Parts: sequence; structure tokens; C-alpha cells
Amino acid sequence: MTLPQPRIPHPESVPALRWGIMGAAGIAHAFVTGVNLHTRQTIVAVASRTPGKSEKFAQQYGIDSHDNYEDLLARDDIDVIYIPTLPSQHRDHALQAIAAGKHVLIEKPVTLDPDEAREIFAAARAAGVLAMEAMWTRYLPQYDIVRQVLAAGTLGDIDMVNVTFCQANLEIPRLWKKGHGDPLFDMGIYAVSFVQTFLGNPTSITAQGLLNADGIEEEVAVQMRYESGARAYMLVSGRAAIPLIGSVAGTQGTLSMGPQFPVPSQVSIAGTDFYAPVETWVDDTGVKGHEGLGLQATHMAGFIAEGLLESPFESHEDSIANLEVCAEIIRQIGAQIH
Amino acid sequence: MTLPQPRIPHPESVPALRWGIMGAAGIAHAFVTGVNLHTRQTIVAVASRTPGKSEKFAQQYGIDSHDNYEDLLARDDIDVIYIPTLPSQHRDHALQAIAAGKHVLIEKPVTLDPDEAREIFAAARAAGVLAMEAMWTRYLPQYDIVRQVLAAGTLGDIDMVNVTFCQANLEIPRLWKKGHGDPLFDMGIYAVSFVQTFLGNPTSITAQGLLNADGIEEEVAVQMRYESGARAYMLVSGRAAIPLIGSVAGTQGTLSMGPQFPVPSQVSIAGTDFYAPVETWVDDTGVKGHEGLGLQATHMAGFIAEGLLESPFESHEDSIANLEVCAEIIRQIGAQIH
Repeated sequence: MTLPQPRIPHPESVPALRWGIMGAAGIAHAFVTGVNLHTRQTIVAVASRTPGKSEKFAQQYGIDSHDNYEDLLARDDIDVIYIPTLPSQHRDHALQAIAAGKHVLIEKPVTLDPDEAREIFAAARAAGVLAMEAMWTRYLPQYDIVRQVLAAGTLGDIDMVNVTFCQANLEIPRLWKKGHGDPLFDMGIYAVSFVQTFLGNPTSITAQGLLNADGIEEEVAVQMRYESGARAYMLVSGRAAIPLIGSVAGTQGTLSMGPQFPVPSQVSIAGTDFYAPVETWVDDTGVKGHEGLGLQATHMAGFIAEGLLESPFESHEDSIANLEVCAEIIRQIGAQIH
Repeated sequence: MTLPQPRIPHPESVPALRWGIMGAAGIAHAFVTGVNLHTRQTIVAVASRTPGKSEKFAQQYGIDSHDNYEDLLARDDIDVIYIPTLPSQHRDHALQAIAAGKHVLIEKPVTLDPDEAREIFAAARAAGVLAMEAMWTRYLPQYDIVRQVLAAGTLGDIDMVNVTFCQANLEIPRLWKKGHGDPLFDMGIYAVSFVQTFLGNPTSITAQGLLNADGIEEEVAVQMRYESGARAYMLVSGRAAIPLIGSVAGTQGTLSMGPQFPVPSQVSIAGTDFYAPVETWVDDTGVKGHEGLGLQATHMAGFIAEGLLESPFESHEDSIANLEVCAEIIRQIGAQIH
């Protein structure tokens, strides 16, 4: 078996769009760093309603600062808005940006509620702007290899997927506050999205969870079944750290992404025999860790130039379906995330 | 974090015992190959009741051949018997060898029934011989690293273990015949043993399985809980191939063995932070794949020289406890393995 080389859009091959950031959240630092290092997109301005927060952020990156969203969205020199705020705020912020005629890149998860995501995507379509979930992993070079492997049918029929997303994040306050983005929606969404890439949407879900005293899930183990008979297994932990590995069993071959599958990492494929030779592609593009957040910006600029209203790598239905999977898991384990 | 070097017993440091093989089964070829390449133990003779089978096996390795077990066991120049037959035959064969005063190395799983294993181990103790399960993974250099890491407390408290043992073995007839050794007992026992190394014996087990038309499990997903509050997750598939990885989350660090944890492979440890540096030990001892089966022979010769009646790396209680885990899983999923 051989692995294809990733097709990586050259930063210069897409228009240099002008970006605004709605909310000076922590993840926005990684986004700006990635954009500045690895794209030719321009970050123009940031806005925050928390006094002093946007000024500090803006000074750090040499961009403009606004103390309210209206001034940011009123600017004619901004094409796209990146929304890194809490998932519970995404609906309001996205609708506001869309109403101002801006394309929107919304940090994952799009929302904590599938219906709110539907509302955002419907509004974006009606306004003729591109709304995209910042599921950045799908825009990494390793994911283009996966898309090519799937298109070529190299793995045969996909029979099983197993994925772990387990980090020791008990000290990250955001994950343990109701409504802020619990471990399943905040971290597990990567695992859900990984599985969906190979198997689509499940026909059944069985979940067991370990809840903390507030009813927020510390760990979730999930089994999913598919119309084809395939199975997926997913382990998400917000307290225990193990390598983050996504593995895929096809009837003709096996694929594995890791040891930290959501960040620039490596992809291996092999035949199904125990001692089948393994071919491995290691990301040596120079994009390190969360700098990879920037790569989705180049892709998005290209999609906008093509006039697309949803990402070809993750449709609106994909984003919504993944939120529905999370919602069903939360329901089954009795977690109280709101 | 740093990894210790494995303490590997030098082949010359233990007595060169004389070995007989009771049953010319397929796995015995790997055992003899491993012993001949990597130990100074001597394979003296093989016996099989299938006409012609032991002669062919014996000629291949230049050893003696017997067409019945009695003649093999009557020999004074044989110290230890290796029993590679089907698990359903292990009880009778082991008791026969023990009655002849031989030490016994019994291929995993010791039996398909915990009570049969108890009978074997009790008989061996009464006879003053060493009976050892051929859980060869525990005798690989990588496992000595694990023992040192655990003894040093480097990982802190063990909070979670996740392990996969998934091979595309639908074409291996042995696994799909009732009483012969189904995927859970034949393959999954490695995963059960891996988990036990770090967490001991579970206080609860929850299993779901995918059964074939004969009621034999094609795939099993298991969750186990421990008195400490720790959790273990185990995925065993006899139909779908993914990397075989065992991962361990401690409060102070994380350890991972793979990408094929049961054979000579690699061990990594890291702190619990997402970007904590990873240190990896790769097995470069020259023992390849299933040749590693031989290494347990050197260990066993050393244990016998010390007068031990059970392996310090896997007690009789360990072997029995792991069979009980398998039996409970089989019961919960309703598999019909006999």
C-alpha cells in the first residue's frame, strides 16, 4: 500500500481576505498565530466587550481594537469574522455577523444545540455568505491524505473505527462550567468528526459516562452502529491523558492517525495482515501543533473565492449531525451541561 | 520523564533446560524458532498423536519425535514440557505432564475455564513443579520497562487504561470453532492481561459484543471499573484490524505501548500535558515479532533454578483472574464458545 501526498493549497493561491475577530478568547491567540505564520490572510481587528481585553489582544498582534461588536461588523474592510467565543454565545454572535454581511468561521462546536446550528446555517445561506465550523483538523494536510485514500477505495469497505480523545484537563475551568462547553462538546467533537469522516452518521448510539458532582461528564465511552453493519468506538476523557489516536479498519486495509490526531501529526496505512508493512506519512510541513488552526483560513478564502456556501470538507449537515450525536450521548449519560 | 532500560536476563545466566513439546501445534513453530534463535534452552523432542505430524515437526528442527505423549513424558532427559495444544485440551495435557514430574509452560489461555486452571495450578504446586502461562508479552523487554516504571511510581496513580486487540482473523479456522479458543480467550486475553498489569482485578465489568451466526464473538467492547475508581476500556475484534495499542493514564504521566503491543514493539511515556515531551524506547534487541515467544523460556529456566512455583511476572491468581474476566464477558454478551 502507498500513501498519496497531501494536496495543500498554497497560501498565495487564494485571495488575501481581511479578517475580524469577534471576542478576544484564548483560542483566538492560536488562530492569529497560525494565520500570521502560515497564510497570507490578514487579521484586521478584534472586538471584545470586556473592558481592556481587545486592546491588549490587538496590541500583541498589531491590529485594530474595538470595545463593541457593532463597530467591528460595520467595517467595510473586513470580509470574514472568526468567532472564538463560548459555544453558548455562538448563535447570537454568528447571526449578528451574518446580518452584517460577513462570512463566518465559527469555533467548534458550532453550538451546543443542533437547532441553534441550523438557525445559523440557514441565516448564512439566506444571506449568501459562507458559514464554516472551525473543525480545523479537517483542513490539515493529513486529512487530505485521508480524503484521497477514501476516494481511491484503498481501505475497502470501512468496517470499524476506534478513536480516543483523552486529555488531563481537570484544571481548565472552561470545560467544567455549565453552558461553557463540556468535555464531550469541546474535545469529543473532534472524535465524533473523525468517525463521521469514515462512516457518516450512526443509526444507533450507546453511551456510558462518568459524571462529576455537578453532572458534567469527566469521561464518556460510546459505541455507534451504522447502516452498513460497521461499528465505531469512541473514548473521550477530560481527566485522563492517553495518546489521541484514530484508527480505521477497512476490509482491505487499515489506517491510523496519531499520536495526537487532531493536530499536525502522522498517518499510517497497512494491509490487514498482522505483519503487513506499514507506510507512514509524517507531517513535515512546518506547521506545528495548534498553529494548524490557521490552515483553515486559507481553505476558507479559497471556498469564498469559489462562491461556496458550505465547506466541501464538512457540510452544514455534517456539523449538525455531529452536534446531534453529542446531544444524544449527553442525554443517555444524564449529563447536566446547561 | 525518562524511561529505564530493560533488564533482560542473559541467555547464559540460566541453566540450559531440556524441553519437550506436547502437541505439534502451529504456535509451537514460533516457540521453537524463538528458543533456538534467542536462548540457550534445548528443545529435545516433540510428541503428537496425529500420525506423521510429530515426525515432520521433529525433522524440521532436528529433534526427537514421539507418536504418543507417554513416551515423551517418560523421558528422564526432559525437564520442562511446553503445551501448545487447544485450550480445551490444556487441562488433561498439563495434568499428565505434571504427574510425570515435569514443569509446564502452558500456551495462553491456560484453559477456557477458570476452574480447570485452578486444578492445573493446584496439581503443579502439589507436585512441586512450576506451571506458567505462556503469556509471553509479559516476558518481553518492554514489559520489564513497564514493571520498572510502575515500581518507581513515575505515572502517579493509574486512573485509566485503554487497550485494543483487533486483528482481521476471520480466515483463521481455529478461532471460529466452538471449544477451540474464540477471539476473546485467544486474542483478547492479551488485552485483559495488559489491563491487569496496571489495575489488578476489576470490581465490575460491562460488555457488549457482536456475535456471528454460531454465537461466537466477532467483536467485544468492554468497560471495567476498579476499587480505586479507575476505569479500563478494552476493544477486541477478530474481524477488523487496527493497531494494537495499550495506553495508560496516570495522574502524573501517561504510558503507551504499541503499535503492536503484544510483540516486541515500543514504549512511550510523557507527562500529562498535551504537548509534554514524549520519550520512546524502541525494541532493538533483535528479537522480531513472534520470535519473542522464546524469551519466556529463558525466564522460566531462571525461575526454576530459583525454585519458584509460580512466575513473579504473572501469578497463578493473575492467570485465573484473567480467565474469570473473559468468562464474565462471554456470559454478558451471550456468546456460545463451547
